[in-house]
Amino acid sequence: MEFLQGDERLDYLLAENLRIIQSPSVFSFSLDAVLLAKFAGIPLSARGKIVDLCAGNGVIPLFLSARSKAHITAVELQPRLANMAQRSVAYNELTEQITIIEGDVNDAPAMLGVEKYDAVTCNPPYFLAHELTEKHSNEHHAIARHELHLTLEQAIMASSRLLKQGGKASFVHRPGRMLDIVTLMRKYRLEPKRIQLVYPKQGKEANTILVEGIKDGKPDVKVLPPLYVYDDNNEYTKEIAELLYGKQ
Amino acid sequence: MEFLQGDERLDYLLAENLRIIQSPSVFSFSLDAVLLAKFAGIPLSARGKIVDLCAGNGVIPLFLSARSKAHITAVELQPRLANMAQRSVAYNELTEQITIIEGDVNDAPAMLGVEKYDAVTCNPPYFLAHELTEKHSNEHHAIARHELHLTLEQAIMASSRLLKQGGKASFVHRPGRMLDIVTLMRKYRLEPKRIQLVYPKQGKEANTILVEGIKDGKPDVKVLPPLYVYDDNNEYTKEIAELLYGKQ
Repeated sequence: MEFLQGDERLDYLLAENLRIIQSPSVFSFSLDAVLLAKFAGIPLSARGKIVDLCAGNGVIPLFLSARSKAHITAVELQPRLANMAQRSVAYNELTEQITIIEGDVNDAPAMLGVEKYDAVTCNPPYFLAHELTEKHSNEHHAIARHELHLTLEQAIMASSRLLKQGGKASFVHRPGRMLDIVTLMRKYRLEPKRIQLVYPKQGKEANTILVEGIKDGKPDVKVLPPLYVYDDNNEYTKEIAELLYGKQ
Repeated sequence: MEFLQGDERLDYLLAENLRIIQSPSVFSFSLDAVLLAKFAGIPLSARGKIVDLCAGNGVIPLFLSARSKAHITAVELQPRLANMAQRSVAYNELTEQITIIEGDVNDAPAMLGVEKYDAVTCNPPYFLAHELTEKHSNEHHAIARHELHLTLEQAIMASSRLLKQGGKASFVHRPGRMLDIVTLMRKYRLEPKRIQLVYPKQGKEANTILVEGIKDGKPDVKVLPPLYVYDDNNEYTKEIAELLYGKQ
């Protein structure tokens, strides 16, 4: 099996001693995915079952595999990205723990089973379809970033159907959609229980939100301490550097 | 007119060169009210019209009078508190700008007029009626702090009815009720536009949330930089000290 194709690179996930196949022309993982992989409540034992939706090149399953022995099924619509994710999983010798599925998130409950999973993670497309502009006309980027093939409501509905009662769904998104997320989560029985805001630096508005809901959970949400990405010198803060590069 | 009755004190609102009548056995204003008075979007000109609901001893109208020339109508259910607020207004010679009304928030739209106001502020009772315990059996505290006479939904509904289209409603509450607040705000056409979380100190979960909505506003919420109340030495942070005591 050829691990790398075209302009792909084998990048380090340094914090986890893993490597991941990336390509600047196709897709590179974002900090948001790493934040979600750290934030999400997941089962830790080998009996646990996790699904990652909108998996991209597989960064979230790779990170989760370092935190948990649970089996992780990852669903990605785009064949090229699913293929990259599959090759990264093989390179890291994680094919027993991680299964990459090329498919539509809307079909995931029918494909994978309804109410069978302990946790779902999802880093969905952030932008509404009508926000698509020329500068994102690269098809891979456009599909990953815009609600062309998957709306937020569809992502939340699929997450809820996959989860057992008491299972946890974690999402990352832009704060501007926060009201939509929490409203839709409640609509699909995912009661928001933990929220964390991520700020680019001190004194700035938040630019990322992490939300975890529990299926049929009791209403009562906690807002965790904020995360800052950069310090006043525009370098990663200690907590973000640790997340990306491990404890130094 | 006797300014002080019983165990009342005349406390300084130092940041604003105002004074306020307080009583330990009846009611003292909370930091949350001061935070709301600072956070709320309000008209500044003398043509503006503001309503403060659940006014307590009048701390929010007093603070707002230092920020704005707009007329402020304050509604408080408890006769004793409304009376204290009225005397504080008189003491500060603000009777032209601030009108204190003893009455039920549920009746406010009918009493004061529907869709006539530019801004509403409300620091509602935080706790559900069934959370009432012995330790809050003081009647004044119980009514101010528990949803005995006013539910969150009633407070939000009244706020919305008072506001003109495009008017702003600002609330302060506990983060645990955040989902209820934003869901109810949307139900009553108050689209949440600005949210600020307040943390007791770094590394702790948020214990206060400030939310501003615009009547019939477009969905898109901003999350402002977080506020911390205490520093690592358990002293007020600079921003909170300035709010309470003014710039030193």
